Amino acid sequence: DVVFLAVPHGTSSQLAKELVSEGVKVIDLGADMRLRDIAVYEKWYGAGHCWPEILPETVYGLPELYRDKIKQSQLVANPGCYPTSVILGLAPLLKQGWVKLDSIVIDSKSGITGSGKGLSQQSHFPDMNDNLAAYKLGEHRHTPEIEQELGLLAGQKVLVSFNPHLIPMNRGILSTITMQAAKPLTQEMLDECYQNFYQGEPFVRIRDKAHLPQTKWVQGSNYCDMAPVWDERTGRIVVVSVIDNLVKGA
Amino acid sequence: DVVFLAVPHGTSSQLAKELVSEGVKVIDLGADMRLRDIAVYEKWYGAGHCWPEILPETVYGLPELYRDKIKQSQLVANPGCYPTSVILGLAPLLKQGWVKLDSIVIDSKSGITGSGKGLSQQSHFPDMNDNLAAYKLGEHRHTPEIEQELGLLAGQKVLVSFNPHLIPMNRGILSTITMQAAKPLTQEMLDECYQNFYQGEPFVRIRDKAHLPQTKWVQGSNYCDMAPVWDERTGRIVVVSVIDNLVKGA
Amino acid sequence: DVVFLAVPHGTSSQLAKELVSEGVKVIDLGADMRLRDIAVYEKWYGAGHCWPEILPETVYGLPELYRDKIKQSQLVANPGCYPTSVILGLAPLLKQGWVKLDSIVIDSKSGITGSGKGLSQQSHFPDMNDNLAAYKLGEHRHTPEIEQELGLLAGQKVLVSFNPHLIPMNRGILSTITMQAAKPLTQEMLDECYQNFYQGEPFVRIRDKAHLPQTKWVQGSNYCDMAPVWDERTGRIVVVSVIDNLVKGA
Amino acid sequence: DVVFLAVPHGTSSQLAKELVSEGVKVIDLGADMRLRDIAVYEKWYGAGHCWPEILPETVYGLPELYRDKIKQSQLVANPGCYPTSVILGLAPLLKQGWVKLDSIVIDSKSGITGSGKGLSQQSHFPDMNDNLAAYKLGEHRHTPEIEQELGLLAGQKVLVSFNPHLIPMNRGILSTITMQAAKPLTQEMLDECYQNFYQGEPFVRIRDKAHLPQTKWVQGSNYCDMAPVWDERTGRIVVVSVIDNLVKGA
Repeated sequence: DVVFLAVPHGTSSQLAKELVSEGVKVIDLGADMRLRDIAVYEKWYGAGHCWPEILPETVYGLPELYRDKIKQSQLVANPGCYPTSVILGLAPLLKQGWVKLDSIVIDSKSGITGSGKGLSQQSHFPDMNDNLAAYKLGEHRHTPEIEQELGLLAGQKVLVSFNPHLIPMNRGILSTITMQAAKPLTQEMLDECYQNFYQGEPFVRIRDKAHLPQTKWVQGSNYCDMAPVWDERTGRIVVVSVIDNLVKGA
Repeated sequence: DVVFLAVPHGTSSQLAKELVSEGVKVIDLGADMRLRDIAVYEKWYGAGHCWPEILPETVYGLPELYRDKIKQSQLVANPGCYPTSVILGLAPLLKQGWVKLDSIVIDSKSGITGSGKGLSQQSHFPDMNDNLAAYKLGEHRHTPEIEQELGLLAGQKVLVSFNPHLIPMNRGILSTITMQAAKPLTQEMLDECYQNFYQGEPFVRIRDKAHLPQTKWVQGSNYCDMAPVWDERTGRIVVVSVIDNLVKGA
Repeated sequence: DVVFLAVPHGTSSQLAKELVSEGVKVIDLGADMRLRDIAVYEKWYGAGHCWPEILPETVYGLPELYRDKIKQSQLVANPGCYPTSVILGLAPLLKQGWVKLDSIVIDSKSGITGSGKGLSQQSHFPDMNDNLAAYKLGEHRHTPEIEQELGLLAGQKVLVSFNPHLIPMNRGILSTITMQAAKPLTQEMLDECYQNFYQGEPFVRIRDKAHLPQTKWVQGSNYCDMAPVWDERTGRIVVVSVIDNLVKGA
Repeated sequence: DVVFLAVPHGTSSQLAKELVSEGVKVIDLGADMRLRDIAVYEKWYGAGHCWPEILPETVYGLPELYRDKIKQSQLVANPGCYPTSVILGLAPLLKQGWVKLDSIVIDSKSGITGSGKGLSQQSHFPDMNDNLAAYKLGEHRHTPEIEQELGLLAGQKVLVSFNPHLIPMNRGILSTITMQAAKPLTQEMLDECYQNFYQGEPFVRIRDKAHLPQTKWVQGSNYCDMAPVWDERTGRIVVVSVIDNLVKGA
């Protein structure tokens, strides 16, 4: 009935094409089906997409944003781990139009399982225990995926700075997102905005400024916990959003 | 000959006053002597400063910026841990005037020793092992200290977003600083700017984009390692700066 | 219907007495009801037991050994964390009479949650991260509990060396138990003995010498994984037994 | 003048032969020169020793036991990491003849750097963080090295159980050694024995029962810290001994 694809990019587009043509529903955990624009795909992933014509029709599998389409679609592109935390964390603000779109800075931190199952220097225990590193600043492949979805939410093109980091823990992602507000706000306005936007969502929990979410709060669960913070002094909003990269982010 | 003060704020200003009046050289590891403006001190630390009239005369003890003054002064205010990593990481850019001053976002991460020697929930092993947390967003007391020194470097008032985090490791601070460039730049311009600014400094090492500094590289040492990264796509600069909070940052 | 007591020793005997007298079934997670001999209790825990006359009648709540009695009893003493791993790991051998009873050396290692929820120096992150410590050698209060149950299995008094350690991880206990065999054995005999003894037990999994159990294999689960190893060279048996101290061991 | 060899076993015996024949002093960090009996070497390491006839003449490079010979010898076999902690921890007792030699059980725990620099499953961060494992029970190649040196100290053949473990920390070894006393002792006798035996040694520190050594106490140092504990109840001695496997143990 349903096939979950968990294969390298370039491979899943080939498999998905065959499966969908046979009438099978496909949920692709890889990156091949996430970007609607083949030019953006080729810029960030190189050539090799086997089914570019399907891209405008795929559904980005974030239930909080696309629940109905996911139910109906035969081909679902599962979101990346970082983008899940970022897009959910920003959606309420972008829908409201409260953000200066050219000011978004995303600082994300991931546990080492985010580096994958394969052995590598950056997942070698003596290297990463008691250590901390930034990587691929401005070059991580999750950037265009974030920008695509933020752009759809905002109704216009969005460019972001996306700074990923590796943290000496097994699992969990925490994204700290800082941006200029488009107009003066208050903490109450932010809290209410988030509560309303995610009203009734079973896997999003709104925290508050005095209880900023920690990755341990969502460990082993499907929750995305988040809290918006208003900084009157600078006129900026800071959002903290956490998921377990092996559950909600997988 | 010299007294190092490592006491709570409010206490060291009292002690420093007595010691200096007796002709002793004082290096204060606390926060009492760092802010030149008593109004800023009172806003962030509350009332209770015992020697406000000395503040305009104290020296901020960062040798890379104030080496000569430190040698001559009888009263040196040792910088905070976070500010050391941030101010050193930004000084070359601010001196050049390459930064849009209203765009600076600082995301800093510290090992748990930064929480102090006392027992606390946030330093309880089962709480923080395999965990990650943001705290005091927009409210950390190191913010005015950072802004004061960046303002002196830039020649005008600077406001920043300062987002501190706790990381499950013992020691080390990594600051990721993102800002809009004031004009188009190149990676080569950035690299050269940093190399020139810190030419001859024994405890600053300039890394590059392909070798972003990690906290382990400076563990147990007095080094501050840093690397600037140019992001052509967004017109932004990202700087990564690392120190050991128990050595260079203490 | 049932009350679970999780209070300090000395307190639970008082509460249990009242509850049982009112016909409530009591499962005591503390130590008050574990030792059948009040003299042993007083030696290791000091005076203060409120209900010594009940001790010969309590049931030691290890289902693999006392399933039927647990079902019928009104008062169940839940085993300690270390003893659970040790007693289950040794039961097959003692039942067979294959162990020289005066040769048992138990080296147990526990994650930091074993130190309890309260803040303490030994659970302070900077102290225990990247650290390792033995404690209470020969003096840990779980020793008499282990000896009581091993003695019942062996049909005679047993004295053991019990060496506990703290490991820089959150949860899990691994016990390595070394003893002289009472007669020549083979690896096959050991494997068969364990398979037979725990036949049908849903929460015990027998591993083998080539796949020694690790604490992560039982994390978050109710399993006790174990493997016996025959050392022909020394005529000794070594058993490795792991549990999650917060689940099976709680 | 001096060559330090840090190459795989089998390789260093070849290199050492050439270097020594040219008059160079050789300190071999590998295992080729540690075992005096070629039959024992071949049993534990397989065939392939290139210079068996030199074995009776090599010096085991533990300065606390062989300082004078090390100074004079042209070929020094540097001890293994585990054996350093074990042999130093047991030497005072064996010299005194206080140990029943057939009762020695050694439970050693090592940080992950002990697994070497190469990538491996057991040094993969997600596998070993928050985990704990025993390995090579009764089969670790450091066993014959320990037995050789303990035998020389005791004046007769010694067999031991050696149980190594991997601990989720970077560096450090802690050995817990349990044995039957050959006669009744007291804690005072043990403390005095150790103090006397290591009198004047710059890199051995005798701790006591109330301050059992932890690996962090010797991190980054050349110290071996140890403490003997008398267990009156069982007539056993337990010794805890710690080193940094990358310094004293390298």
